[in-house]
Amino acid sequence: MILVTNDDGIVSPGIKALVEAVQKFGDVVVVAPDSPQSGMGHAITIHEPLRLQKVNQFGDIPSYQCSGTPVDCVKIAIDKILHRKPDLCVSGINHGSNAAINVIYSGTMSAAMEAAIDGIPAVGFSLLDFSFEADFSASKFYVEKVVEQVLAKGMPGDSLLNVNIPKLPLSEIKGMKICRQSNAKWVEEFDERTDPNGKNYYWLTGKFVNFDQGDDTDVWALENGFVSIVPVQYDLTHHHAISFINQNWKLHD
Amino acid sequence: MILVTNDDGIVSPGIKALVEAVQKFGDVVVVAPDSPQSGMGHAITIHEPLRLQKVNQFGDIPSYQCSGTPVDCVKIAIDKILHRKPDLCVSGINHGSNAAINVIYSGTMSAAMEAAIDGIPAVGFSLLDFSFEADFSASKFYVEKVVEQVLAKGMPGDSLLNVNIPKLPLSEIKGMKICRQSNAKWVEEFDERTDPNGKNYYWLTGKFVNFDQGDDTDVWALENGFVSIVPVQYDLTHHHAISFINQNWKLHD
Repeated sequence: MILVTNDDGIVSPGIKALVEAVQKFGDVVVVAPDSPQSGMGHAITIHEPLRLQKVNQFGDIPSYQCSGTPVDCVKIAIDKILHRKPDLCVSGINHGSNAAINVIYSGTMSAAMEAAIDGIPAVGFSLLDFSFEADFSASKFYVEKVVEQVLAKGMPGDSLLNVNIPKLPLSEIKGMKICRQSNAKWVEEFDERTDPNGKNYYWLTGKFVNFDQGDDTDVWALENGFVSIVPVQYDLTHHHAISFINQNWKLHD
Repeated sequence: MILVTNDDGIVSPGIKALVEAVQKFGDVVVVAPDSPQSGMGHAITIHEPLRLQKVNQFGDIPSYQCSGTPVDCVKIAIDKILHRKPDLCVSGINHGSNAAINVIYSGTMSAAMEAAIDGIPAVGFSLLDFSFEADFSASKFYVEKVVEQVLAKGMPGDSLLNVNIPKLPLSEIKGMKICRQSNAKWVEEFDERTDPNGKNYYWLTGKFVNFDQGDDTDVWALENGFVSIVPVQYDLTHHHAISFINQNWKLHD
């Protein structure tokens, strides 16, 4: 049983490509947001109830749209639709990069992380193309490659995978690289405007800046024509910092 | 310059307590959500513009409410209000625990993490009491202790702090403990109901289960009367998994 979800919403071409790529590996169930949920990170819906509706988006494949976030979709899928943990959860294919720090803002990756927290092998896939008309054919090839390995070899404990695919034809992609998250981030500038009532409002805009020169990072791999695969953890403890604080702070006076 | 934010909203008693506790350390500016944003994780607002309004919530202290998420508040504060990075960002005091896996769902912690990503020393504070009438007096004592150490001794690079305070009078708190994130998580059950139109809706409910027997965890510390301090990282790479995958997967055929 394979659970498929995403953050762009159930009607996005990316999730259709993902369903097509994984259905050869087992029974597929789709539970995805009924509206775009990009940038929702690990948000959950606490103050409102959720709606869940069966849809016919993918022919014979049982498919449901949910009014909540990507993480809500995974939670409700397990409790109310599957009534068990799936053998695999795949999320995406995201329209746009989730490399580097984007892993933290990404609803796609947070859905996969939610599954991983529940002990389910989980992978998030993203294509470096924001377009609705993006070409997912090379992505589908690599989704199959990755899922095959995950099912055959398993995942290291307490991890999930962040897979990003460069915007290139299949023949130009050089292969897959296991990477670390690049030290790259968004430098924000809000676009300030005035509404017809004279009040200001602000659009989030930003520039992505890579501060990392390493050739073992996801950003490097993608810029050099590789599919990047970053194993991701949800134990956020900065273990090395524990001894620093114990040695340097005055904790006991 | 100290930036104060939270996820319970600018009118919550927790942020008032935090402002009172940190103002002895420097000039304070408050930028916080105009409505409750619990469970928003690292969500950012992409598809809608943000509103920002100056308010008089804290007397002479410059204070702004923002229509966005806690992470939005930090981003817009730096770009549009402070026009520089603050020397410290504190978030909270959250009404309710952010120990263990809650760090991932928490808007309080994500605001602090956003500041840390930007290179700003950052701490999220939470009291283990969901009540609006929670007593923050012991919390304020420990906010001062922690902020004093952060300003004097600095933070280890690339980390922030997740500070949780037990629901106890000051005299019964045994001190502070540097901890790791406990392996504890939510086991969900959705509460299914039917609306007056005959359609189902679902409330997220859950039970918090600790799978971790360690006495070096945040959950252990809190259950044993200590303030827990977990250093948190935003490099989500599972570094140990990189060699596992390189050794076990067929990557190059």
